[in-house]
Amino acid sequence: MISLEQARAIVAATRAKGRDMGLNPLTVVILDAGGHLVAVEREDGSGYGRPDIAEGKAAGALAMGVSSRKLGDMAADRPQFMAALSAAWSGKLIPAAGGVLIRDGAGVLLGAVGVTGDLSDNDEEAALAGIEAAGLAAG
Amino acid sequence: MISLEQARAIVAATRAKGRDMGLNPLTVVILDAGGHLVAVEREDGSGYGRPDIAEGKAAGALAMGVSSRKLGDMAADRPQFMAALSAAWSGKLIPAAGGVLIRDGAGVLLGAVGVTGDLSDNDEEAALAGIEAAGLAAG
Amino acid sequence: MISLEQARAIVAATRAKGRDMGLNPLTVVILDAGGHLVAVEREDGSGYGRPDIAEGKAAGALAMGVSSRKLGDMAADRPQFMAALSAAWSGKLIPAAGGVLIRDGAGVLLGAVGVTGDLSDNDEEAALAGIEAAGLAAG
Amino acid sequence: MISLEQARAIVAATRAKGRDMGLNPLTVVILDAGGHLVAVEREDGSGYGRPDIAEGKAAGALAMGVSSRKLGDMAADRPQFMAALSAAWSGKLIPAAGGVLIRDGAGVLLGAVGVTGDLSDNDEEAALAGIEAAGLAAG
Repeated sequence: MISLEQARAIVAATRAKGRDMGLNPLTVVILDAGGHLVAVEREDGSGYGRPDIAEGKAAGALAMGVSSRKLGDMAADRPQFMAALSAAWSGKLIPAAGGVLIRDGAGVLLGAVGVTGDLSDNDEEAALAGIEAAGLAAG
Repeated sequence: MISLEQARAIVAATRAKGRDMGLNPLTVVILDAGGHLVAVEREDGSGYGRPDIAEGKAAGALAMGVSSRKLGDMAADRPQFMAALSAAWSGKLIPAAGGVLIRDGAGVLLGAVGVTGDLSDNDEEAALAGIEAAGLAAG
Repeated sequence: MISLEQARAIVAATRAKGRDMGLNPLTVVILDAGGHLVAVEREDGSGYGRPDIAEGKAAGALAMGVSSRKLGDMAADRPQFMAALSAAWSGKLIPAAGGVLIRDGAGVLLGAVGVTGDLSDNDEEAALAGIEAAGLAAG
Repeated sequence: MISLEQARAIVAATRAKGRDMGLNPLTVVILDAGGHLVAVEREDGSGYGRPDIAEGKAAGALAMGVSSRKLGDMAADRPQFMAALSAAWSGKLIPAAGGVLIRDGAGVLLGAVGVTGDLSDNDEEAALAGIEAAGLAAG
């Protein structure tokens, strides 16, 4: 399982990347491998519904074992199936880039990060930078 | 109503078929005719969200009286209608193959099986083999 | 995390203990350490609402890190607090004996078993026998 | 509204107080005045259900305009009423000490902090220390 210090390192580096890229205010959520909250930070100006979006990207990635970018591709191919999954999981599946699985050096799944606030591609870029800066691996 | 021993026989034979076919790890759920859990087995490596998917395939089949393959066809034809049903039933309708009604030799509805983990067509093939091996009838 | 084979062994031994004790039909649920379903068996004659009870005993034990017997004691002392937790977790906390944490020989938490169908004390006795028979540790 | 930097300061000081007091691992949640997540940190060893408890203490405080200690008193006096509120708000009201309103120097409500992991009195003591260390006011 991911430690709080690992989670905090990812949140800090993701936010720093967002500032470097000049992104909109971000919300960053870290879940453990069982899909439970470890850390959340919502930047000033990031709307109050954003934590649910970030959590939904991360939780969907964990539940399906792929990135939320891939979930977005699946939703384009099979929209009814993915909509049904979102309903089954009470919205804890948001099919858009920005939710990324986190693994240790041995490939063990530790959890997932979810980022929202800017374009999904940018959210994901910040998430990937955050995981790398923490010395962990995406995917 | 389906007995636990019938349910266990279907689960075992479905999983055996999955191994014979070389499928990904499977989750198999058996519901009684009222849509309530009788048996669940989630194989190692099958994601934690899978029981909800398997249950949703089986429960949708029972609620509508058709296979979840047919629900997938209905969702392609009438996506908003089916999305509304998924929401109304809190996701207990997943419109993709792998959910199959179970009947006895006289055609009496006993319950349903839901399978997930591989391609939907493969999930369904394993489910059908499981029902047949248990001496019961699909549909 | 608990394997499906470990989970099946606990279910089988719990049910066998129930038969030896002459208990009412039982429902047995195994959750992994993140609170997600691994295995369920509902014996013939065990009511259709029983899986939610068994899951609630096991999930409450995991969420609070104690047995559901202890949750029952807490509910006697602080009924409003425990009722609020049940609501927060959508009923996934049932404060009555029969939900027991499962650990390996090194004390690592693997998951939990929940049993319902007879008196809570008897449910718990069957659960404890199931864990022991599988070569694992309760608590 | 509370800023993320204010929220982070409260979380850090609350956790530091917990360590000074030798408390169990804590989970700390900060909500804005609308009851929405701003920051969450769950320490290693704090159970996965803890964020819901911390959020429920803070959210109940905001929804009723009093501390969650006071909500506990109300629950002792009027248990059915408070149980109904917990249900109405899907558990986002946990009637136990540890949820404290946060105000600025002028008395303007900024949000609330919720703490869980140790005895409720200790949770609250850590929360109060966190608010004070951040240069804000409890109540």
